Amino acid sequence: MKQIQNTFLREFSPDGHYLVGVSGGRDSVALLHCLINSGYKNLVVCHLNHQLRGRASDADARFVEKLADKYDVDFVVDSANVRALATKEKLSIETAARDARYKFFAQAAKRERCRTIFLAHHADDLVETFLINLFRGSGTAGLGAMRTVSKRRVEDVELTIVRPFLENWRAEIDRYVRSQRLKFREDASNKDLAPLRNRIRRRVIPYLEKILGRNIRQGIWRAAMIAAEEESWIETQLPNVTDVNLAVGKLRDLPVALQRRQILKWLRAQNIGNVGFDVVENVRALLDHDSGIAKTNLPQDRHVRRKAGKMFID
Amino acid sequence: MKQIQNTFLREFSPDGHYLVGVSGGRDSVALLHCLINSGYKNLVVCHLNHQLRGRASDADARFVEKLADKYDVDFVVDSANVRALATKEKLSIETAARDARYKFFAQAAKRERCRTIFLAHHADDLVETFLINLFRGSGTAGLGAMRTVSKRRVEDVELTIVRPFLENWRAEIDRYVRSQRLKFREDASNKDLAPLRNRIRRRVIPYLEKILGRNIRQGIWRAAMIAAEEESWIETQLPNVTDVNLAVGKLRDLPVALQRRQILKWLRAQNIGNVGFDVVENVRALLDHDSGIAKTNLPQDRHVRRKAGKMFID
Repeated sequence: MKQIQNTFLREFSPDGHYLVGVSGGRDSVALLHCLINSGYKNLVVCHLNHQLRGRASDADARFVEKLADKYDVDFVVDSANVRALATKEKLSIETAARDARYKFFAQAAKRERCRTIFLAHHADDLVETFLINLFRGSGTAGLGAMRTVSKRRVEDVELTIVRPFLENWRAEIDRYVRSQRLKFREDASNKDLAPLRNRIRRRVIPYLEKILGRNIRQGIWRAAMIAAEEESWIETQLPNVTDVNLAVGKLRDLPVALQRRQILKWLRAQNIGNVGFDVVENVRALLDHDSGIAKTNLPQDRHVRRKAGKMFID
Repeated sequence: MKQIQNTFLREFSPDGHYLVGVSGGRDSVALLHCLINSGYKNLVVCHLNHQLRGRASDADARFVEKLADKYDVDFVVDSANVRALATKEKLSIETAARDARYKFFAQAAKRERCRTIFLAHHADDLVETFLINLFRGSGTAGLGAMRTVSKRRVEDVELTIVRPFLENWRAEIDRYVRSQRLKFREDASNKDLAPLRNRIRRRVIPYLEKILGRNIRQGIWRAAMIAAEEESWIETQLPNVTDVNLAVGKLRDLPVALQRRQILKWLRAQNIGNVGFDVVENVRALLDHDSGIAKTNLPQDRHVRRKAGKMFID
């Protein structure tokens, strides 16, 4: 795991204070080990108990606590009833689990006065996420799902998310874990929590590589990294949306590519989460004077309306 | 085929003078019929004989000639030995055929003093091209492969390419062809000329839709359209590269997303075609002073070198 040493020691020095998300699964156990090995000391291991596997979930939490203890770093834990959240918010288990984790990370960030968190997502995760967003056609952030360093606003906290493994493949992490004889919790890596992801990982990607006779993951990885970089740059080119309403005229003057991103940014700023480009396109259709349409539906029974040259949410 | 009437009559009026690419296959026959039906009169039907299927190819050419005759529009034809070109240039048959077609279109555009060409690419073509570029990881234009209206420089001609069917699915075109009882050449639609495309169309997409239990083409189509729009907008934000060399310092000052696009634009301006992002990344690595690397390979035995603060091609 050379990458950590090479790339991250500069920007995120081992002397700093960081959170680390640790499920107890192979990837996050490897990440924590790597960080400790690279001289990071002032770490806070963050573990959310998703309560999805009963006693096994409690055992995961205890395992991670012991690990933190062994490495002599801080440990924070919380639990969330992810299944109930998913039902209540009409989300998939995977999405509800992710939302709950980020909420937990934001709370930990506040309490620990530390805004930077290391997460163990690796190159295969990136490829799988890209394909999931592509096939669903409603990825919340377009195709550029993950970046090595990114910002994410969760409630009133701006987290800096660092993914040191994003250039490492699962197989490399496997080798590292074996060579270091690391123990981890076999099922803690959310196997049963993401059926679509598992189908992509275990069936779709192997099938594609077989029928096309080539490694496709490298190409998808590169496409995803480039898309993420371009999306992030486009974001920086958008006018700020501080207002609750969006002026139709100003939006109409932007190039189509920026209209889409601006709408997405506005919806997010108004706490309309999980919005895909299908919704964005419906909102964009409101720009058309001639269409006569002045209302479109958002998730969770909310709406965008156009009235007197403004768009607003109710 | 309402789309043509709605969207195109405004920008590309039926009174104008246009080229139309017609292979004789179902899609291009439908396109030509649609245009004629919508009142376009001043058309030049362009057919390139790819010489891939011997006498059948000659029969395609005669079929298209008769069609032009029937509709009372102009007809231009040429032929290219695509197989020989592919061997000589070390390209796939599909890529060699496309290059030959665009060269032919550019020549026709010059001779006919007409810079706009209608092509019959439809929504399924867009989805297939997106997946091909994604899986190969070396798409020549990133993921935004096709746009409804785009510019393409071929030698010294700037073609405006219009794809009226880009929002129509193959099934809609099929229905149109049946309802209008149009005759077309069964094999002229490049079946055997694109083995990878055929595998994607006939095996990969049906498999994905079966295993994921949903229509994935709509989502991919939207992603491809958005990517194309964003790439095209990013292009407009790039500094112009008129110089044969590229200044390393200026390039280094750009955000990574723009560095990539700038390199791609520069290579294209220098007639380095068929360049994927793997090559772009190699060129970008030359920006790193510390790396010690000052040369990287391009296709067809050409190279980019860094010397005295400039990048140049030899």
